[in-house]
Amino acid sequence: MGLFITLEGTEGSGKSSVMEKVYSRLIDEGYSLIKTREPGGTKIGEEIRNIILDNSNTMMDIKTEALLYAASRRQHLIEKIIPSLKEGKLVFSDRYLDSSLAYQGYARGIGIDEVLKINLFALENQYPDLTLLFDLDPSIGLSRINKDPNHEKNRLDLEKLNFHQKVREGYLILAKQFPDRIKIVDATKPFDEVVENVYSIIKSRLK
Amino acid sequence: MGLFITLEGTEGSGKSSVMEKVYSRLIDEGYSLIKTREPGGTKIGEEIRNIILDNSNTMMDIKTEALLYAASRRQHLIEKIIPSLKEGKLVFSDRYLDSSLAYQGYARGIGIDEVLKINLFALENQYPDLTLLFDLDPSIGLSRINKDPNHEKNRLDLEKLNFHQKVREGYLILAKQFPDRIKIVDATKPFDEVVENVYSIIKSRLK
Repeated sequence: MGLFITLEGTEGSGKSSVMEKVYSRLIDEGYSLIKTREPGGTKIGEEIRNIILDNSNTMMDIKTEALLYAASRRQHLIEKIIPSLKEGKLVFSDRYLDSSLAYQGYARGIGIDEVLKINLFALENQYPDLTLLFDLDPSIGLSRINKDPNHEKNRLDLEKLNFHQKVREGYLILAKQFPDRIKIVDATKPFDEVVENVYSIIKSRLK
Repeated sequence: MGLFITLEGTEGSGKSSVMEKVYSRLIDEGYSLIKTREPGGTKIGEEIRNIILDNSNTMMDIKTEALLYAASRRQHLIEKIIPSLKEGKLVFSDRYLDSSLAYQGYARGIGIDEVLKINLFALENQYPDLTLLFDLDPSIGLSRINKDPNHEKNRLDLEKLNFHQKVREGYLILAKQFPDRIKIVDATKPFDEVVENVYSIIKSRLK
């Protein structure tokens, strides 16, 4: 079996660019890895993603949203994650379970336990082996996003700062609840330092 | 508050054509009613419906399917059913909760209780006031569908007869489990007789 690693954090935490560097190093060392993302990661998942992120779907209820994320996650797990782990690969997923728990469960107020319930239906205990939580004050992350001319704003980016601050709180609660699985990465540090930190956490799991 | 009535049955049970006659009579008598359907019934729900029924989505896992139905149902409930009930209307939904319990829970083998769990997350105890189960041997229903040149086959119509027979079994189990809510309509009877039967069941609830 391979290793299942998930990447979490509020918007603009820099996880994508950090991970590109980390992936390169792991690939150079000969690791076989796949990079995937949620919502999406499969044809059906991408179709679900389009519904969730569509700016015109302002009527979407928060429980509808939570169920759509769980549906997309289920498909992703069955079609892509489990088969890749069986092939012995390192599987990196940009967002997974904890995004739902932090965004829908905590920040939107459905409740972490309630959202965990429908995810346990979807995941049948397939927790990640390791979760990297890129942590920073969301005001910094959002100002990074706003400076990036290539970033096209979706329905979630348009949420108010207060919402993103609650997401961060939710993530930090989860990090306390699952201390063995979730490792906090200080995303305010200089880029190269964050890369080094993430790389060494992953390497320590690969030994 | 209005009255919430759901229509259930295997494919080709004739529920749509029977209900058209029943609706006409109720409207003539001055009742204010809305007709809706699942999956769908809202913009977001119709988008979810398209994913579920897309013939090219052969990779869809059964739990993904169950979660998508629950998501569509949630949106339908919040955006359309509850507001219409508050306006005092009769709300008729072609398929609702019991479809998921019979198709995904029983026939696909996830388990009625498992599928009920995610639906309770979605519905928060908003059960229908009355459910009409149009019951007949699925071989009769499928031969009706096959004779209809206007019927475009979707992913569910393409299931084997055996699957539809299990769906029927599931429905009959549910009818025993919820005898006050679910009323069985013998859909093998002549058309006019079925209309009369359905009409009188509904009228008895309206007194």
